[in-house]
Amino acid sequence: MAHNQFEPRHYYTTIGNHPPVLEVDPGDSVSTTTVDALGRDASGNQVAERGNPQTGPFAVRGAEPGDCLVVRLDMLHPNRTVGYTRGVVAPNVLDPGFVPEFEDELEEELVHWSVDTHVGTARVSKPEGLLAGVNLPLDPMVGCFGVAPPRGQAISTATSSTHGGNMDYRGFRQGVTVYFPVSAPGGLFFIGDGHAIQGDGEIVGTGIEISFDVTFTLDLIKGKTIGWPRAESSDYLMVAGNARPLDQAVQHATTEMVQWLQQDFGLSARAAHVLLGQSVEYDLGNIFDPAYTMVCKMSKAVVAAA
Amino acid sequence: MAHNQFEPRHYYTTIGNHPPVLEVDPGDSVSTTTVDALGRDASGNQVAERGNPQTGPFAVRGAEPGDCLVVRLDMLHPNRTVGYTRGVVAPNVLDPGFVPEFEDELEEELVHWSVDTHVGTARVSKPEGLLAGVNLPLDPMVGCFGVAPPRGQAISTATSSTHGGNMDYRGFRQGVTVYFPVSAPGGLFFIGDGHAIQGDGEIVGTGIEISFDVTFTLDLIKGKTIGWPRAESSDYLMVAGNARPLDQAVQHATTEMVQWLQQDFGLSARAAHVLLGQSVEYDLGNIFDPAYTMVCKMSKAVVAAA
Amino acid sequence: MAHNQFEPRHYYTTIGNHPPVLEVDPGDSVSTTTVDALGRDASGNQVAERGNPQTGPFAVRGAEPGDCLVVRLDMLHPNRTVGYTRGVVAPNVLDPGFVPEFEDELEEELVHWSVDTHVGTARVSKPEGLLAGVNLPLDPMVGCFGVAPPRGQAISTATSSTHGGNMDYRGFRQGVTVYFPVSAPGGLFFIGDGHAIQGDGEIVGTGIEISFDVTFTLDLIKGKTIGWPRAESSDYLMVAGNARPLDQAVQHATTEMVQWLQQDFGLSARAAHVLLGQSVEYDLGNIFDPAYTMVCKMSKAVVAAA
Amino acid sequence: MAHNQFEPRHYYTTIGNHPPVLEVDPGDSVSTTTVDALGRDASGNQVAERGNPQTGPFAVRGAEPGDCLVVRLDMLHPNRTVGYTRGVVAPNVLDPGFVPEFEDELEEELVHWSVDTHVGTARVSKPEGLLAGVNLPLDPMVGCFGVAPPRGQAISTATSSTHGGNMDYRGFRQGVTVYFPVSAPGGLFFIGDGHAIQGDGEIVGTGIEISFDVTFTLDLIKGKTIGWPRAESSDYLMVAGNARPLDQAVQHATTEMVQWLQQDFGLSARAAHVLLGQSVEYDLGNIFDPAYTMVCKMSKAVVAAA
Repeated sequence: MAHNQFEPRHYYTTIGNHPPVLEVDPGDSVSTTTVDALGRDASGNQVAERGNPQTGPFAVRGAEPGDCLVVRLDMLHPNRTVGYTRGVVAPNVLDPGFVPEFEDELEEELVHWSVDTHVGTARVSKPEGLLAGVNLPLDPMVGCFGVAPPRGQAISTATSSTHGGNMDYRGFRQGVTVYFPVSAPGGLFFIGDGHAIQGDGEIVGTGIEISFDVTFTLDLIKGKTIGWPRAESSDYLMVAGNARPLDQAVQHATTEMVQWLQQDFGLSARAAHVLLGQSVEYDLGNIFDPAYTMVCKMSKAVVAAA
Repeated sequence: MAHNQFEPRHYYTTIGNHPPVLEVDPGDSVSTTTVDALGRDASGNQVAERGNPQTGPFAVRGAEPGDCLVVRLDMLHPNRTVGYTRGVVAPNVLDPGFVPEFEDELEEELVHWSVDTHVGTARVSKPEGLLAGVNLPLDPMVGCFGVAPPRGQAISTATSSTHGGNMDYRGFRQGVTVYFPVSAPGGLFFIGDGHAIQGDGEIVGTGIEISFDVTFTLDLIKGKTIGWPRAESSDYLMVAGNARPLDQAVQHATTEMVQWLQQDFGLSARAAHVLLGQSVEYDLGNIFDPAYTMVCKMSKAVVAAA
Repeated sequence: MAHNQFEPRHYYTTIGNHPPVLEVDPGDSVSTTTVDALGRDASGNQVAERGNPQTGPFAVRGAEPGDCLVVRLDMLHPNRTVGYTRGVVAPNVLDPGFVPEFEDELEEELVHWSVDTHVGTARVSKPEGLLAGVNLPLDPMVGCFGVAPPRGQAISTATSSTHGGNMDYRGFRQGVTVYFPVSAPGGLFFIGDGHAIQGDGEIVGTGIEISFDVTFTLDLIKGKTIGWPRAESSDYLMVAGNARPLDQAVQHATTEMVQWLQQDFGLSARAAHVLLGQSVEYDLGNIFDPAYTMVCKMSKAVVAAA
Repeated sequence: MAHNQFEPRHYYTTIGNHPPVLEVDPGDSVSTTTVDALGRDASGNQVAERGNPQTGPFAVRGAEPGDCLVVRLDMLHPNRTVGYTRGVVAPNVLDPGFVPEFEDELEEELVHWSVDTHVGTARVSKPEGLLAGVNLPLDPMVGCFGVAPPRGQAISTATSSTHGGNMDYRGFRQGVTVYFPVSAPGGLFFIGDGHAIQGDGEIVGTGIEISFDVTFTLDLIKGKTIGWPRAESSDYLMVAGNARPLDQAVQHATTEMVQWLQQDFGLSARAAHVLLGQSVEYDLGNIFDPAYTMVCKMSKAVVAAA
């Protein structure tokens, strides 16, 4: 069933056991909107408090702890023409003691971007003249999404953990399917923090923050227990590990990938280890917020041949 | 001038102020060979002790501390048909307490690979039957190379720092130009540890370890002081940061990239920060050895437009 | 006013915006009990789920975000004679790949300890014969306590952050006064997880876990905003930084101490930095759970002389 | 045999396989001097380059790789009345983005201290008036010492590893015996970087840097292989782990302590783990330089009772 044009009336800045705004059946799809990280909607109105306010939660009938919630990102579409970024690489991403000196100051500490979804590019609109020759290709992605975490926790949308959250990974784009571990009845799916474009790491603390029209399909794998968010694109298996330091995020993501290859793709432990050694890839997600994200990737073609 | 077929007679397992085996002029190219990480040459003979033994050092006339040594990797060619990998993802890349259980044991703890440079693929040859359907595309790269480090140090080829060393980055492939900071007269360039293929991170502790025929061109930029290894491919600017944890490697690489964009490409601090924020990329090098490597990348086309 | 013998009827395993069980005036003291980390009370009965269940929350009238909640630990007294520890140093505290081999197995994975509060020592009671000659001096402390965190979060009692939580610091003992940043109306103070004894770091994942009789006095400093839990013993100023890796915990604790010395003790920035350099001390709190704790300490006598 | 008044003529800023300045028999003691971290001697003359220049190396007859070199620190005595510290807590010890603002500037970036070895205290002598009321008790210690590292490396005296080096641990004071793993013939012992006083962590990048008269006794345990520097005071067993982040230093130190307790004190694995859990202590060494130091400590009395 398709739930069209679900209109959010409330936004959460924690991902937790909040009452569902809509309950759907496994296989249903939902069309709705998300506001930007600052809480502004398609018209630029401030309708939520800042800090990655989330649309949802959406409950899936029958979802119980120990299940796996499946989210297909059917459509991620910026629904206005202006986006915002910060203009300073974060101090935690630069050498301690390296203090950049800027020639200018920024109004409201934000750079404005003009986002053209027809041409498919974005360019700086303010400060005028900044990076005048640069048109970056759009690549819309979800910065922060996930499900209610374990133990009845309510976790800030500034951070991430096993339940997903603020992972800021460029690979969470349209067409990708994401798997989350269910820890609460209904699963409780939240989504927000759309980026028209983002560099790896979200090292200025923002992508091009913008409101989205989104459509996603929610499904359920009963009795399938996973440890960390998993995902599939047409070409890749992906696992997100969320922790600090990055070394630990790598450990979480790699361990989960080893288990995935063995459990779901029939590889022996030896085959999984040997194959990972020579064909694994890693991408960097968020390296700005309390928890960092590393994504462990494997080519589906390579895994299929194994 | 081309120094053809320089034949190494000695290999070093530290990168330090060792007497040069050949002195060349800026702009000269050198053709020589490297043994594999285990010290075995093109014929499979053990001619050096294990641990990334290096060919060199090659001195460049006129190189002095404060200069920049330029290395173009003209050719990196596996010169035999068998390579070796380990078969276990390293414990420091897996969750603490996660102990894999293998169905088999490995002879000499090594997996053997058949490397076909004509077809351009590698496959496991021993244990027989392991990953029988998998043919991985060759992508030869240098695991360990660099120049004499500062303060008269001699640093193990197991690790890396500002001088380069064991960075195990897949992007150090044929056609790439690498820049190292000169800390000793002549610069003293070392090269070894060829991999026919390697997954990101070298997470089993090896790529497909193999001996190489190599050709490289050495050049000099007088008075150009850099902090970390920089590199250029046809498409990318790259900086390697080497440290633990990965977070610190990211800090080194990003800070160096900010400075590179401002100093050599004329970007203002603001332009550099804003552009990095939305278009930076990161790759993972070594995450096995004492120092880890993260590479900060920027598209040359994007930088040129800025 | 003294609230004597408050009897808890419910225990929380998150620290969050839960309804207060008692509201007190600033300056009031409360006598109550805490169950052990496993949820067992003074009689050894399982009355709460495991995972550092907390007594509380206690609201302080007039406490608002931006204030500082003051907790004096008047009495921390083990109220039964048996305590429990784990018997294995955690894998995250040992070298990756180091797998200890034990000669024995433990029933229920727990070591039992006989706790004698009159003599003031504890010794292993089961397995029999283990460490037969060892009597460790009691040093009761609170492992997990704190106040409701910001943004309406509810954070697992397994971890810690600016709000306190599972810091497992030996210095949180009887007689010590602790300061927490208020983020929710009433502050909402929780306490639990008493340890009869604990080694630095809680490296086996437990102290000697035991139920407590506790008395504490709650007070308020209006308009006093702090960033991290601060504390005072008779001899020391202390700040707890909670994060991973430990390096970051050190950064939080040290930055907060610098500010404390300047704001409340009248030191110039220069005096604070110079004095810290030659007389700061650090203690290790929890190095077992998701967030680690480092405590930055300064002698009150030294600060008073400055 | 006592080698009295050995007068250094050369100082090294790497710890490596340098030719010994003196060869001694196991059990011999040596009296000599060390210059301060800046290269200044007892008269304040610059006689060596800055960066923890070392006196030595001293070879012990018969020492071979796989042995253990024993160093008893018989006397550590500041031999002049002025010492130097930096006056700024290092950026890597403070929160990223926290930039202190000082009311004053420091000449030569150094604070001068008047060191009175008769009274046993130090106080700031310049800038005048800074911390005028503060007299800190002297507690002389060695910041940087160790033996030639493995693989023929020569490692900067700015850092530390298995061979010792710049550990900046307050517990390396007079009366303590230190054990180093021998990796080169003769062991090759270096010593320097005396501190009249130092706060934990050396968080301003210096202790009170001063030249020393030193006496030490060198001995040998044949065939005793250790992994990390171990030490004994009258009360404690200590192990130094040197790495980044601190978490890894803890892993090295704790693993070595577990092994020490089992191998040399007859504890079963279970007894060692259980005892460590409730009585281990940790001290912080250097948290300023490339490698950080954590020290794992156990009370000798507690271990003797086990």
